[in-house]
Amino acid sequence: MSAKWISVLLLIQLSCYFDSVTCGKVLVWPTEYSHWINIKTILDELIQRGHEVTVLTSSASILIDPNKSSDIKFEVYPTSLTTPDLEILFMKWIKKMTYNMPKDTFWAYFSRLQEIFWEYSDCIERLCKDVVFNKELMIKLEESRFDVVLADAIGPCGELVAQLLKIPFLYTLRFSPGYTLEKLSGGLLTPPSYVPIVLLELYDRMTFVERIKNMIYMLYFDFWFQIFNMKKWDQFYSDVLGRDTTLIETMGKAEIWLIRTYWDFEFPRPFLPHFEFVGGLHCKPANPLPKEFEEFVQSSGKHGVVVFTLGSMVRNVTEERANTIASALAQVPQKVLWRFDGKKPDNLGPNTRLYKWLPQNDLLGHPKTKAFITHGGTNGIYEAIYHGIPMVGIPLFADQPDNIAHMKAKGAAVSLDIKTMTSADLLNALNSVINESSYKENAMKLSAIHHDQPVKPLDRAVFWVEFVMRNKGAKHLRPASLSLTWAQYHSLDVLGFLLACVAIVTFLVIKCCSFGYQKFFKTEKKEKKD
Amino acid sequence: MSAKWISVLLLIQLSCYFDSVTCGKVLVWPTEYSHWINIKTILDELIQRGHEVTVLTSSASILIDPNKSSDIKFEVYPTSLTTPDLEILFMKWIKKMTYNMPKDTFWAYFSRLQEIFWEYSDCIERLCKDVVFNKELMIKLEESRFDVVLADAIGPCGELVAQLLKIPFLYTLRFSPGYTLEKLSGGLLTPPSYVPIVLLELYDRMTFVERIKNMIYMLYFDFWFQIFNMKKWDQFYSDVLGRDTTLIETMGKAEIWLIRTYWDFEFPRPFLPHFEFVGGLHCKPANPLPKEFEEFVQSSGKHGVVVFTLGSMVRNVTEERANTIASALAQVPQKVLWRFDGKKPDNLGPNTRLYKWLPQNDLLGHPKTKAFITHGGTNGIYEAIYHGIPMVGIPLFADQPDNIAHMKAKGAAVSLDIKTMTSADLLNALNSVINESSYKENAMKLSAIHHDQPVKPLDRAVFWVEFVMRNKGAKHLRPASLSLTWAQYHSLDVLGFLLACVAIVTFLVIKCCSFGYQKFFKTEKKEKKD
Repeated sequence: MSAKWISVLLLIQLSCYFDSVTCGKVLVWPTEYSHWINIKTILDELIQRGHEVTVLTSSASILIDPNKSSDIKFEVYPTSLTTPDLEILFMKWIKKMTYNMPKDTFWAYFSRLQEIFWEYSDCIERLCKDVVFNKELMIKLEESRFDVVLADAIGPCGELVAQLLKIPFLYTLRFSPGYTLEKLSGGLLTPPSYVPIVLLELYDRMTFVERIKNMIYMLYFDFWFQIFNMKKWDQFYSDVLGRDTTLIETMGKAEIWLIRTYWDFEFPRPFLPHFEFVGGLHCKPANPLPKEFEEFVQSSGKHGVVVFTLGSMVRNVTEERANTIASALAQVPQKVLWRFDGKKPDNLGPNTRLYKWLPQNDLLGHPKTKAFITHGGTNGIYEAIYHGIPMVGIPLFADQPDNIAHMKAKGAAVSLDIKTMTSADLLNALNSVINESSYKENAMKLSAIHHDQPVKPLDRAVFWVEFVMRNKGAKHLRPASLSLTWAQYHSLDVLGFLLACVAIVTFLVIKCCSFGYQKFFKTEKKEKKD
Repeated sequence: MSAKWISVLLLIQLSCYFDSVTCGKVLVWPTEYSHWINIKTILDELIQRGHEVTVLTSSASILIDPNKSSDIKFEVYPTSLTTPDLEILFMKWIKKMTYNMPKDTFWAYFSRLQEIFWEYSDCIERLCKDVVFNKELMIKLEESRFDVVLADAIGPCGELVAQLLKIPFLYTLRFSPGYTLEKLSGGLLTPPSYVPIVLLELYDRMTFVERIKNMIYMLYFDFWFQIFNMKKWDQFYSDVLGRDTTLIETMGKAEIWLIRTYWDFEFPRPFLPHFEFVGGLHCKPANPLPKEFEEFVQSSGKHGVVVFTLGSMVRNVTEERANTIASALAQVPQKVLWRFDGKKPDNLGPNTRLYKWLPQNDLLGHPKTKAFITHGGTNGIYEAIYHGIPMVGIPLFADQPDNIAHMKAKGAAVSLDIKTMTSADLLNALNSVINESSYKENAMKLSAIHHDQPVKPLDRAVFWVEFVMRNKGAKHLRPASLSLTWAQYHSLDVLGFLLACVAIVTFLVIKCCSFGYQKFFKTEKKEKKD
């Protein structure tokens, strides 16, 4: 290679270093399944804009596949877990959350949820230790001189790696149970009178009884529920960083929180300048369908088609449930495309076809699609919103019941319970969303809101990643509340002081009055005596 | 005119009617002085984008000049007031606020402020009545079929006109004292632990004593201070609308609040989705200076120039103050351009030139400009931020002390008191902001933040005006809190109920225990006796 070329390459290298806008280096701490599908859209766009993206992933990763052809770089760290181990763990948690949650008492329900979250957190902690205690890897990461870490807040570690590499970090997040992380680390406010606590399936307009429920749950989440085993995490973070700290404090250093919803989906609620609502950033126009799909869709005639999937984590249901569903689907005049990987139901109608994989977005964007039967994952719901398709929600776990509740509140969905629904329930629900015009109209309204933003969600997400790289943070957006103690934040010290002042003044006034009264009374008595 | 041309014109007319994006009709309820200068930028941009803009203005208007050549239409309504009347009133209020505010006790200070605001509100009410009771005008407005009203929230009436015309409305606003309107009508949250109440000159990071002060002021504004004479306004609005209503309720129907600040200026604080921070929307790159100015600026050599103005409302100061200022200015090596309309100070230095008008933005954007001496109006501060110029603030009234406090907190300004400052104070302040590099660096940081936004503030402001026209509102951004009573909003009913439950349960437990204890005790006693 000639000296001239070497100097040109050097110049390019230097331009990358000095101009982080056009050539930044992004390190990513992702989470599996739909979270990965969502964050990958941001990563692809960052690459498109000339940045270098490296994903930190374990040798046991499930969906995050370093071997798939992509411009994303992968830094695969070894772990004692295997992919099947991880898959078994995730499936166990999902099964527990879907079928084995004691819904009768809230205490039992959330104790079980906490138990599952702690198991999950132990697993993430193990992976995190495999990263930060891997000296060779950490030296390599340090030498790579990344500009920023983009992390999924629901799986801690990204913030620890960022602190060790002394670089700023951003989060992407759908929610944390009870908004714990958003509140404690992000400073988000959730006034219980009109901000329903996530997981309760409540709306923003609540009755008195619902507001009582919301308040009790808020208090429960604030004072009892622990999303992760904080004691363990605090100790781990303190040991690694060599100073007394906590997970919540470390997460609180996030520059920006990219929340994966928007006001087409979310109820209007207070937020802070370092929160950016980028829901539906993965949405895009539909591509033409593969021939096989297009032919089947076209064969539906004027009735159109129904698209049915339960997401990237759940590919089948029990035989009995599958039969119930198949029986309902057989009775609609539409053709149905069902993503299903189990035993073919006996009563599957001739109008229903089973597929191991569906081009979901392309189908939802097809003019013949009339309805979407969905488990209510945020990604899927956003694709339906994007294309204006009404939904029948069969939520399974996590935020799904809440997501469907939001769509129901906005008049774009009907909700069913996977465990108790009958064929007639599903049939009625499908007929409603297809034949009652309000569902389609409301879905189209949400679509209009989604499309009518000053900047597309993906562009906003990428803008803030680039902003943090350009400016080495976004300190001007950081609320001062994050530096206050809990008592200071709630002005308890101030109110205590003011109440004490009022008490002292009241006490003195009463004392003075009674002293004056006694003196006057005694003098009068004495005078009378005299 | 041929039939062909008539049909073409009809088609254009229809396209305006059906496609309000490209041809909306905007009715404007403005406020005088700097507020008009700011809102006019939005109006010019709306016209640029093909909309029709009509400004409702009285025959007594001061700065709002219907005769100035512009594409803005003016609907001038007759009023018994005259322009000199209005000018005298404004000057009286300014003088009171600048020189006659009893700063020693807060009670006296805010009582005087309320008094001034009530006088102002009476004046606005008079103008408002001149509009809504002018039947001919109201019929004309109705027939004009406007799509939206854009109003300055600090001068009520826009919302009333919008309600009468049955069209949506948006606000533009810098602030209202104590954030009263933003809180009561907009639902904005102001946690007293880190959101300093406007007018207190406090920062977001407060000491314990400052937080006590902030809490007391917040309580004062919440429970005592009335920005307008609400009883009068409520009666007026109820009479006109033919139903029991209040000013606060009517203002609460605003679709969007365009707040004239941004996070380069404001401390990070909670807000709601229907609040959009569009501070500095009027800022633009500097044009070349007129020859006379350019020559004077160039004559400053390496020392550069200082720009000095006290805004559109105050063109001079007392003779004694002018001499103090002139004496300080004479001692700096820079050339000084001073907007001043009074008697020429005796000790005016040869480096200082007086002007009745200054091309402020073009001067601030000139590479030779080293500092800006300003009264701290939001418009001027934003021009300094835009061009990265450090400031010496001499705040006079309204939000100006607060604005300068913000710039001081961000390290881009030094603050002086117009009434007490000496020549030495001004000289030291000027030397500091010019020679201590931190001031320039911080001003440049603010400038970088201002320029580094996903969408320019003017584009965002215009986007939301257009959005409201396109969608006949922005209901999806409206927080449910606006439908709650004060007690419901603060969850007082819920807390009361829960406390009552706790009290009853405690009472029953104690009763049961004491009953059990007595029974056990008596039995034992009896047994002992036996």
